[in-house]
Amino acid sequence: MNEQRSRAQTPEPAVEFPAHGRNRAVIESVAPEIDAGRFPIKRVVGDQVTIEADIFADGHDVVSGILKYRKAGDDDWCESLFEPIVNDRWSASFTVSALGRYQYTLLAWVDHLKSWRRDIQKKVDAGQHTIVDLRIGANLIRESAERAGGADRTSLEYWSDAITGASDLGSATQIALDDRLMSIALSYPDLRFATHYPRVLEVVVDRKRAEFSSWYELFPRSTGRDGVHGTFRDMEKVLPYVASMGFDVLYLPPIHPIGRSFRKGKNNVTESEPDDTGSPWAIGGKEGGHTSINPDLGTLDDFRHLVTAAADAGLEIAMDAAFQTSPDHPFVTEHEEWFRKRPDGTIQYAENPPKKYQDIYPFEFETDAWRELWTELRGIFKFWIDQGIRIFRVDNPHTKPFVFWEWVINSLKADYPDLIFLSEAFTRPKVMYRLAKAGFTQSYTYFTWRNASWELREYLTEVTSPPVSDFFRPNLWPNTPDILSEYLQSGQRSAFVVRLILAATLGASYGIYGPAFELLEHTPIEQGREEYLNSEKYQIRQWDLDRSDSLRDMIERIHEIRNENAELQTNRTLQFHNVDNPALIAYSKSDRNTGQTILTVVNVDAYNVHTGWIDLDLDALGVDDSRPFQAHDLLTDERYMWNGSRAFVRLSPQDIPAHILKIRHHVRTEQDFDYFM
Amino acid sequence: MNEQRSRAQTPEPAVEFPAHGRNRAVIESVAPEIDAGRFPIKRVVGDQVTIEADIFADGHDVVSGILKYRKAGDDDWCESLFEPIVNDRWSASFTVSALGRYQYTLLAWVDHLKSWRRDIQKKVDAGQHTIVDLRIGANLIRESAERAGGADRTSLEYWSDAITGASDLGSATQIALDDRLMSIALSYPDLRFATHYPRVLEVVVDRKRAEFSSWYELFPRSTGRDGVHGTFRDMEKVLPYVASMGFDVLYLPPIHPIGRSFRKGKNNVTESEPDDTGSPWAIGGKEGGHTSINPDLGTLDDFRHLVTAAADAGLEIAMDAAFQTSPDHPFVTEHEEWFRKRPDGTIQYAENPPKKYQDIYPFEFETDAWRELWTELRGIFKFWIDQGIRIFRVDNPHTKPFVFWEWVINSLKADYPDLIFLSEAFTRPKVMYRLAKAGFTQSYTYFTWRNASWELREYLTEVTSPPVSDFFRPNLWPNTPDILSEYLQSGQRSAFVVRLILAATLGASYGIYGPAFELLEHTPIEQGREEYLNSEKYQIRQWDLDRSDSLRDMIERIHEIRNENAELQTNRTLQFHNVDNPALIAYSKSDRNTGQTILTVVNVDAYNVHTGWIDLDLDALGVDDSRPFQAHDLLTDERYMWNGSRAFVRLSPQDIPAHILKIRHHVRTEQDFDYFM
Repeated sequence: MNEQRSRAQTPEPAVEFPAHGRNRAVIESVAPEIDAGRFPIKRVVGDQVTIEADIFADGHDVVSGILKYRKAGDDDWCESLFEPIVNDRWSASFTVSALGRYQYTLLAWVDHLKSWRRDIQKKVDAGQHTIVDLRIGANLIRESAERAGGADRTSLEYWSDAITGASDLGSATQIALDDRLMSIALSYPDLRFATHYPRVLEVVVDRKRAEFSSWYELFPRSTGRDGVHGTFRDMEKVLPYVASMGFDVLYLPPIHPIGRSFRKGKNNVTESEPDDTGSPWAIGGKEGGHTSINPDLGTLDDFRHLVTAAADAGLEIAMDAAFQTSPDHPFVTEHEEWFRKRPDGTIQYAENPPKKYQDIYPFEFETDAWRELWTELRGIFKFWIDQGIRIFRVDNPHTKPFVFWEWVINSLKADYPDLIFLSEAFTRPKVMYRLAKAGFTQSYTYFTWRNASWELREYLTEVTSPPVSDFFRPNLWPNTPDILSEYLQSGQRSAFVVRLILAATLGASYGIYGPAFELLEHTPIEQGREEYLNSEKYQIRQWDLDRSDSLRDMIERIHEIRNENAELQTNRTLQFHNVDNPALIAYSKSDRNTGQTILTVVNVDAYNVHTGWIDLDLDALGVDDSRPFQAHDLLTDERYMWNGSRAFVRLSPQDIPAHILKIRHHVRTEQDFDYFM
Repeated sequence: MNEQRSRAQTPEPAVEFPAHGRNRAVIESVAPEIDAGRFPIKRVVGDQVTIEADIFADGHDVVSGILKYRKAGDDDWCESLFEPIVNDRWSASFTVSALGRYQYTLLAWVDHLKSWRRDIQKKVDAGQHTIVDLRIGANLIRESAERAGGADRTSLEYWSDAITGASDLGSATQIALDDRLMSIALSYPDLRFATHYPRVLEVVVDRKRAEFSSWYELFPRSTGRDGVHGTFRDMEKVLPYVASMGFDVLYLPPIHPIGRSFRKGKNNVTESEPDDTGSPWAIGGKEGGHTSINPDLGTLDDFRHLVTAAADAGLEIAMDAAFQTSPDHPFVTEHEEWFRKRPDGTIQYAENPPKKYQDIYPFEFETDAWRELWTELRGIFKFWIDQGIRIFRVDNPHTKPFVFWEWVINSLKADYPDLIFLSEAFTRPKVMYRLAKAGFTQSYTYFTWRNASWELREYLTEVTSPPVSDFFRPNLWPNTPDILSEYLQSGQRSAFVVRLILAATLGASYGIYGPAFELLEHTPIEQGREEYLNSEKYQIRQWDLDRSDSLRDMIERIHEIRNENAELQTNRTLQFHNVDNPALIAYSKSDRNTGQTILTVVNVDAYNVHTGWIDLDLDALGVDDSRPFQAHDLLTDERYMWNGSRAFVRLSPQDIPAHILKIRHHVRTEQDFDYFM
């Protein structure tokens, strides 16, 4: 009895079929891809974006894959062919040449012509192929011809006919194996059963400064003479000083009118004296709010003048965006619906029980009028954009909804793709990362508290490796007006140098709060706290910029090195090298275009001389292990001849406690004259 | 001049707002979640499914999260509250109690009442709270009351009023801090601004045998006497032998009519003798195809009888599903549209140039008639399901489209959720994993070729850890009819014991191809190949099941241990322990319900005695490091007293080259009488 027939007479109820039952190729594990495509990745203009994916199919056929990409808004896609790496992992790239958003997605298919080409070669090599085998190829080539146009179509048709019409197996074979014609035929693949990746992914393309920037934070009100409240005009006089050190971003704490109610006195005391200037972050008074200027600093015209003068000096002004108000802000009376009311009718001030911040009113983002509030806050950014500002350091973004940041940053960058937003969130790691995903261009980090070599290595590896590095750009700060780290409280000059060099060489973007930093300011308000004594947040300070112990010259030299060596202008190539002494840390960065490399070695112990052997990763340094090479210290101009993967270093806090070593390769020229390039 | 006003007069063009601008909570990094929810995870009936996610919000408010789950098809969701683990990571669980599919998704929100409860406590502790603070809470409780019904509503209204109406701050405070009423109020959260996870994720729930199974592969035709072709009736006589060893799945190579054209002779020679029986995988002849039975084995009634007899002996029959045909299969004439045609009109046989397999025709899954082909193949499964079969070992699934397997397995399991499909794909890792994702219940693995302790540790860690373990269930085979591993070719009895014990204790599911395995069959067809000499794939073999050197007793003992100790019935708790000798491997499994633990130690060198110190992970063993404990060898009944984390072992290939140690804990009773449970 034939069981099969008996079964066929009782058909099964119909089962629904998938739409694409012949799409045999699989695309998996696409990288980069943030949270299933929920967020874009970040790159800068000129970057090559490399996309990897697992691409494979059932059986033994050859698969092909294409990366499709375009500038967002363009109708047409460009294409880049995936190349296999290993183990079904494939790679393809494209270059982002313009500011704004790019999109990419993937396509893969079973490539019958490529499979035939591989198999016919094997058969030919085994002396096993037949005329039928060749005719299979000729048919596939004819199908390619039908998909081609113009001259390619003619060529392919002619080729197909030539294979079929050849007089004997030998000549047919010779014709069929033509590589040039094959590459034409392969460029017209049969995509009927191609698998389309289900998601279109995005890249936010920023200007280079988003990746590479040197920030200097300065309180304008401390630029006056003899303790008088400084103005924008006073500040202009300090521009040459800042510019001479080589910074490129000059960041100002809030410049708006400061509230009077509950104004904090010097050293953050609750009661202020009449002449106390208050905290610039207590924004808003009778003189106006977030789009007004503290009259003590000058006028809007003065500000515009400052922005221009700074630009002339090579400095881009970054403004603070602190979305909170003092009790005296115009919003409090004009838009009380944007604040949270208490049952007694008062407005809820900021608190973190048992701490109270009665001088600060947070916005209530759950207000029914949230759309109006968002529009107003967006308008504040827009107002300063109209004054020529393109960089904002956003204060405490983690206390406002992520969905707001995503909206405001994306909608502004749609019009001004050169905008840079620095997230000042010192909070839990996932919150910091989510802010970056939501759109912040750069982010403050835990670098400020990472002192030991293992801590630095672990943390910097995390933030400079995918997936984090695809959306999070660290901006490393040794100090801020809020944070005088324990490490700096030692007051040791070497401690400041260590932290400066670490920040400026580990991070393509970094910043200092000056002149406190270069003038080695190191006294905390009390033992065990990170608050500065006589903090500029609450009072005007006078700084002697010409002090002989200033780090000014060291900073200038470090910026020369950063500016002249492209390898320090990115974090993508950061690579740590093992050292046998935990007081020493060694890491390199290389430039993917030139292959040039800098190796930095730092003694993180600010008190003691340390020596150690570095176990160099010569591949990362681009060094041939069979030949000596030169390590040229760009700080001291000393040159060391090294050979092989073990290198000895000695670093003393009494001298410069670091090497910034340009690795100079041994090059053999046609005259066999050796030099180091 | 008030800048803000001047700006307000020139409003910005409207920017589109997101739909949920007040949804402040974030849900990220949900695990398990396979490929952004594209595939379900796998569990067995009775499992507790634990879901983790990053849940957080902006600011300092407290968040709450709920895991929603249901049996697929149910209208209503059940709920389970997320509990924080650490660092914004949360966890919630549910139990899958029925076969089939379950669904889960997540919900999170900023919980104002919980935030208030936390803050009021801090204020109370600081002696800082006011009647206004308490009224804020009373208002939140009243809002909960409005969301509640019945008695809860009344209780909460009464409570809110009591706080507001209390005569003084002290009594109001005491009333407000009522924990029992608070837990009621918190159970009616304000979900207006709750964030819903955008995806509904799925769990395929299988029966326990999907996770825990002991397979025995047997060629029915070798169960006859004196070299005569065995039948199902002959095979029934062997059932007590297989059952006595403790196996629970008896897997038969294909039982269908075998093709005559290009039939392979003994030892896979191209020319066969007239009495050669051919390879069972060359399916189809004039007697029928995939739903017919090779007449030499018997009838469909005989097969049904065998299935019943096996079940009576505690053995579940697993069938082979090899979707390919011999040139003599009825499909070849009746459905030539299901095969690939060559230009000369012949059907394309299987090939992997320069190798040809002219006795095998693959199906052409790119045929225009793919729906009919799929329906037919599904019908083949259905036919054998109707004969009582629920386990299929699928031959070479990696040569058929993934999308087909996903369709056929899912559509069959919708009707028969107790089905088990074992994927026989020995191919590239990503292909094997994709087949598992597509729906295969169990999968063959690389265990067969992993011999060194580090290889085993690395590979087993990979396949038993998330994310792989969420979709891939390994089934470990020391040998198969296709693979006589180099390790076994030594012929050493100890080599077979080592591989047996490794498979049976590393894998909750494992199998052997017998009687070749227990009778130590070890001669390859030629040096350097893994093919058996005189392979049963191409000829009938006779086995002396009563041979004195058979491993039968050892296998029986191992199955007693597996069946009596639930910790060996899962891979989820597999934990390796370091040993200072690479010839030794040590690993434990524990049972999450009872906490019982088995530690297995194997000498993977089949030739030499090895000793070593194990560095025990006492936490994984559930052992208190301050007290001695007993390691009871279930193979030899020897008992070792161990103390602390260092344990010495000595294992000899001349004896049993492994320990399977039940860890027995020291228990103190009320009589202070010590015993080991």
